[in-house]
This record gives sequence, C-alpha cells and structure tokens, in this order.
Amino acid sequence: MPQKASIDQSEAGIASYVEALCRAARAVARTMATAPTATKDRALTIMAESIRRHRDSLLSANAKDFAAARALGLDAAMLDRLELNPARIESMALGIEQIVALADPVGAIDELRTRPSGIQVGRMRVPLGVIAIIYEARPNVTADAASLCLKSGNVVVLRGGSESIHSNRAIGALWRAALAEAGLPEAAIQMVDVIDRRVVEVLLRLRGLVDLVIPRGGKGLVELVANKATVPVIKHLHGNCHVYIDDHADIDKAVRVAFNAKTQRYGTCNTMETLLVAEGIAPRVLPALATMYRNKGVELRGCARTRNLVPEAGAADEEDWETEYLAPVLAIRVVSGLEEAIAHIEHYGSHHTDAIVTEDLSSARRFLREVDSSSVMVNASTRFADGFEYGLGAEIGISTDKLHARGPVGLEGLTSQKYIVLGDGHIRE
Amino acid sequence: MPQKASIDQSEAGIASYVEALCRAARAVARTMATAPTATKDRALTIMAESIRRHRDSLLSANAKDFAAARALGLDAAMLDRLELNPARIESMALGIEQIVALADPVGAIDELRTRPSGIQVGRMRVPLGVIAIIYEARPNVTADAASLCLKSGNVVVLRGGSESIHSNRAIGALWRAALAEAGLPEAAIQMVDVIDRRVVEVLLRLRGLVDLVIPRGGKGLVELVANKATVPVIKHLHGNCHVYIDDHADIDKAVRVAFNAKTQRYGTCNTMETLLVAEGIAPRVLPALATMYRNKGVELRGCARTRNLVPEAGAADEEDWETEYLAPVLAIRVVSGLEEAIAHIEHYGSHHTDAIVTEDLSSARRFLREVDSSSVMVNASTRFADGFEYGLGAEIGISTDKLHARGPVGLEGLTSQKYIVLGDGHIRE
Repeated sequence: MPQKASIDQSEAGIASYVEALCRAARAVARTMATAPTATKDRALTIMAESIRRHRDSLLSANAKDFAAARALGLDAAMLDRLELNPARIESMALGIEQIVALADPVGAIDELRTRPSGIQVGRMRVPLGVIAIIYEARPNVTADAASLCLKSGNVVVLRGGSESIHSNRAIGALWRAALAEAGLPEAAIQMVDVIDRRVVEVLLRLRGLVDLVIPRGGKGLVELVANKATVPVIKHLHGNCHVYIDDHADIDKAVRVAFNAKTQRYGTCNTMETLLVAEGIAPRVLPALATMYRNKGVELRGCARTRNLVPEAGAADEEDWETEYLAPVLAIRVVSGLEEAIAHIEHYGSHHTDAIVTEDLSSARRFLREVDSSSVMVNASTRFADGFEYGLGAEIGISTDKLHARGPVGLEGLTSQKYIVLGDGHIRE
Repeated sequence: MPQKASIDQSEAGIASYVEALCRAARAVARTMATAPTATKDRALTIMAESIRRHRDSLLSANAKDFAAARALGLDAAMLDRLELNPARIESMALGIEQIVALADPVGAIDELRTRPSGIQVGRMRVPLGVIAIIYEARPNVTADAASLCLKSGNVVVLRGGSESIHSNRAIGALWRAALAEAGLPEAAIQMVDVIDRRVVEVLLRLRGLVDLVIPRGGKGLVELVANKATVPVIKHLHGNCHVYIDDHADIDKAVRVAFNAKTQRYGTCNTMETLLVAEGIAPRVLPALATMYRNKGVELRGCARTRNLVPEAGAADEEDWETEYLAPVLAIRVVSGLEEAIAHIEHYGSHHTDAIVTEDLSSARRFLREVDSSSVMVNASTRFADGFEYGLGAEIGISTDKLHARGPVGLEGLTSQKYIVLGDGHIRE
C-alpha cells in the first residue's frame, strides 16, 4: 500500500493515488468473486484470532488517536466512538466469527424455471465488485465492514476518518497478514492512507472502478456523498422514527411499545423520536406513559393537546417534529386519527422505521401499506429494526434509500443477481 | 399541464417549471401507490381502446413530426424509430393490454418468518414513487413506459425527444383522459412539454422529488445521464454481446446458436457482435459458419487465425472488439480456450449478455460464475435476453447496472421492498 509520505499532495496527485488504489482493487475483483467459501472463512477466522492476539498493539495505536483527538478538543460522543478497549476488541473479533458462521450468498441460484421456449431461466447471486466505505471515527468499521465485504466476495476500499488513522493502520496491517496467510490477494482490502478531503470527492466519481459507495457517519457526511456521487450509493440518513398509538390500541401494549421504543437505548437510529397518539385514546394512555418517562428522566415536549393531559411537558415546535434527538427527549403530538398520523410521518419522518399500535386489522393493514419507510411495524417496538433482529446475521448499515437495498443491509445487500439461461442448443425463432 | 408558450425560458424559469411538474407528480404518489389493481387496470384498458379509436389523429400528429424530421435531414434509422403506422399503433394497444394481464406486484408480502424474539419479519413490495423516463425519438415509449409505471403504482414523468413532440402530446392527451375516466389523478402521468436540454439537467438532480431516472436512448444520452445524475439511475448501456464456442462444444449446437445470435435480428442489443472460438475446435466450426454468414450477407472481420481458416474475412482490429455493430457485421476471434475467452469478454464486453456453447459441465459452471454480465447463458442464443422470453411479461429496458435491477427490468424492477414487522406488543429486551 502506498504510504502517505510518498504521495504527491496536489489535486492531480491525490486523484491518481486514489485511482491507482481502486484499479488495484478492481484487478483482484474476479479473484475475490470466485474465491471458495472455505478460503474466505479461513481469512476471517485468522483475522479474528489476530485481533485478539494483537490486542495490546491495537490498544496502543488507538491511544495515540485518542490522545490526539482529546488534544483537538473533540466532543465526548466522538471520543466515545473513537475509543477501543479490551471489551470492544473482543467484540470486533466475535463479530467477525459471527460472519464466518453465515451462509455464503455468492453463487446461490434462485427461481430456475423452464420457459415455453424450453430454456431454463434463473438468477445467480454475485458480488457487486468494488465497494468503497467512507466512515468517520469508529475504528471497528475497519474490521466489521471489511468482513462483510470479504464474505460476500467483494473487494473493499476503506476510507476512515483522520481521527482514527493509527487504529485503522494497525487493523489494516492485520488484514493484509490474514489475507496473505489464507492465500487471498492483499489488495482485496484497501485502505486509503492519505488524510485529505479531496480523496472522497475522487472516490465518488470513479464510475467503472467503484461499484458502490456506502457512507457511514453523520448527516453531514451522508449529505456530502449523496450530493457529489455519480457512482451508486446506499445511504443511511437519520432515523426520525415514530410510534403511533391508534384509537383501537390495547393500552398495555401501547405503553410497553412506546416506553421501550424510546428508552431501551437513546442513541440508536431506530429509537422513537416522536410519539403520535389518537385523540380518542390520549387521555387513557398519555398520563401513565408520562409518569414512566419522567421516572426514567426523559424530557417531554408536546403539542397543546398533549400539554393539557401532561402539564409538565414543554412546548414542542416545528423543529421538534423534525429532530432526531438521539437523547432522552421525546416529542409528543395528539392527532385526530390514522390519516393525520400517516400525514405527519410522511411530512416529518425520515423513511426509517415507524410503528402503529392497534388491535384494528384495517388500520394495521393501511399503516403497513401506506407508510413509506424502510421498516413499518405493527404492535412492535421500533428498536427491532436491526440486521440481527431480522435474521440477516449482521448489517453494514440501514438503508433509507428505496433502490437495491432498503432497511438493514446484510450480506445479500452487498450482492446482486444476474440472469442465467440454460439451454441445449436453443435458438430464438 | 403547463404549455410551452407560458413558460419562462430562463435557466431559473426552466428549473422552476420542472420542479413544479415533479412536485405535482410527488403529490399524487401516495394515491397511485394505494390505487386498487382494478382501477389501474381500468385506466390501462381505456387507454388501449382510446389508442385504437384515435388512430387517425395519432397518425396525423406523427406525420407532422415525421415531416419536420425529414426536413431536418435526420437519418433513416431515426426516421424509422420515429414513425408510427397502423401496425405500430395496434402493437402499442396490444402492449398495454398485455400489461393489464400481468399480476400487480404492489403489496405482495414475501418471506414472512417468525424470529426468536417472537416478531414476524417479512418484506412488502411497494412502488418506488416518481420515475422519470428520458427518451429519444420513439413515441411508443410514451405508451409502453407509462403503462409499466402505472401498473406498478408509480407516478411517471416523461421527457421525450423534440423530434416526437406532436406524437407525444397526442398520446399524452389520451393518457389524461383515460386516467380521469378511471378516477385516477391526471398528474400520475406527467409530460415535460418544453423542448430545452436544460430540462434534463434539472430532472437529474431533483433528489427527494424523483426516485429513479431511466434513460432510454443512444449511448450519448445514457452517458450524459450517468455523468450528471445525483438521483438513482437504471441505465442500459450498449450490448456488446459474445458467444464463445468452447473446445467441448457440440458442433451442431455451436453452429445453430452462433448463427441465430447474429442473424435473427441485427439491430437489437442482445445480438452477438463478437464470436469467440476455441482454437481446438475452430477448424471444425468456423468454415461452415462462415459459409452460412456469407449466404446471409454478414460481413466477417477476424483475427489472423480466423483469416487462416476463413480467407474471405477482413482484418479485425481493437475497434472491432469494442464495437456494437447493430448491423450484419461480425467480429471473430480464435482464443486458446475458456480462460482467454472470459478475459476477452471482461476486457471488451459491456456486461450485457454473453453465452458459452459447451458440453463440458465444469466449463459451463465456470463461465456462468465468472462472466460478469446481466445475462450469462449456456447453449442458448443471446437473443433470448428479453423480458418476454424471461417471463417478466414486458420490460422497460435491460439494465447493465449491478444495483437494484440487472438484466431485463419489468414490473418488479419498478418496485422496492420494505420490511414489515408484526408483533403483539413485542418489545426489545
């Protein structure tokens, strides 16, 4: 891998560095696409062991990043994402071992059917090719995302944040050793080792060399990628998730689901941010819920009708309906019923995950059909929107796009299907 | 629909016209997404009848376009694409009736499974939303593409070529009447009625209003769209398709398939453009094939080894390997075997459709797995790569992209799947 010191830092120099790196990735794409499952699993298993064995050197590389980040005055949330500790290193290793246990999607043939002409037509699952991951502080992405790409037969180009450069370099060195030991090309996991924002702009336009870009990070990063990319992107915008308690809800279920969706974890994208309650049921459900939230330390901000029922709630404004708090804060709005709830979600939501609580079949069917989000739920907590909970085994992110992959993206989302046709000398008349 | 005369032709005027049109489209997206199958089918049936009833006025509108195109000196191929005649009008009507007969993909729920947590997780098929089709001369696209979008619950924005403006306006008027008669919003099929290249540039960047752009036309149009679009695109680049006759081919099948793939129709994207032949079998297959091609009037251009076996063939150069002739011309190359054939296809092909003729199972499996094209075939003519032949019923194009839809794109390719979760008050522990 080219090292920073040797790189021409001009615009043209950066562009040719990134292009060379992606060409090297492309050059091994066919090798990776046809690599046997056992070989890929062997590389992953070696990597998991290697992460455990090199725990101390990973921790000391990470300590350099952490010290630099603290010196720069980065905020506590950023420092938390950046930090590695023995538990997090063990969980990186375990995560890789879980991916070893998943079925290899490559080569699976679905729906092979005989057509009237006599040909058999089916679809074979194949890797996408070269996937670029653009991410921020979290060094564990260097292990997790690369593992998913490797298992699905893709080549990956990793462009991590400058904050975690030492950690990423240390993990990258372990990857190269693991690939080599398993007999796979080291170029299958490429790390961009230049700290320069222009790298991203070049990556986003390398059509023909990069098959997919996945940004993993805050809204700013994702918007930048979406605005500049001419290569395909799977993006995860924010999660402004709703629970709607319908007139026909069971009170116990409504309270359980609404409480869990907000409080089980605050900082995740599938956490409820706004609670919608039908006016007919609001007096029977909101006061009880408000007490539970208060006891848990959740700040409430409501519409006027909410505040009539929950006097201690602050006043919510337009901005609250739009906000992904990622914090113990909840917006509450009383609505006239299903129609207004769906309209609110359509207007303010982020198409991530939204749930209805109801015992009424027609309301449930309508909510499922009409709410245009990557996950739509009936009588279940939004916190279930997750690759593990859905049975994908692991996820590289949650797509709020509509094309290709929507919702949690696992191994299957990193592949595509080509048509295969089997004949016996068949020709078209 | 705004008419040309009333539009401010400045850059800002064009942008606001296109944006208003797409906002009007977006405004009816939910109505179309939830429209009953019977209502959508009714609109389509009315449209098919209306096309037949208004045959003469469609022909006279088309005659205006045709006269203008001839006056401008457009080439014969363009004039052919532009022309409507009674047979083509009947085939537009029949095409729409075939789409009525297809199953509605919207709302289908697949793979509903119970997870260890007790929730049921499945996937529901839903429309994409607003689809923009950017096309050139062919006025039949105004009928075909809109029908597929309507049946799949999408709203469509049609931007046809200036050559076919009168034809498109006439078909557009029939659409509005058919939608209104069926009780659907007229805005569900929008036609851009301004002849200005800047329209496309605006359309390609309307993220949030346009969910997908499908360019249908020549390489220049598709490249323009791919280079400028920040909204998702399904594109159909050219079809530089190959047949590889393996050492282990059955001679009769090889001759049948190679002859049919080239000569059944010359102008289609799934027509073979380069024939690759293993050196071990070339002397037994090439002379016979050359005679058949000669009798059919196909010009042959070959590598040196081909010309040793087929003296009348011209010399092929690099450009021939890259060319989609769409004409009775064929490039022929003798290769050492499977490895070289796959490498040639990887280097020169367009990832559209490629076939192997072989009786050897290992060669067939390897070709299927390693050739990275939207359709990969064994012992069958490349001409089968087609939505009707594959059982999709109809196609809006053939995608040479890898994401979302690959190969022939039918109703399913115009939809996406969202996750649905059914619980009974389930919460995450």
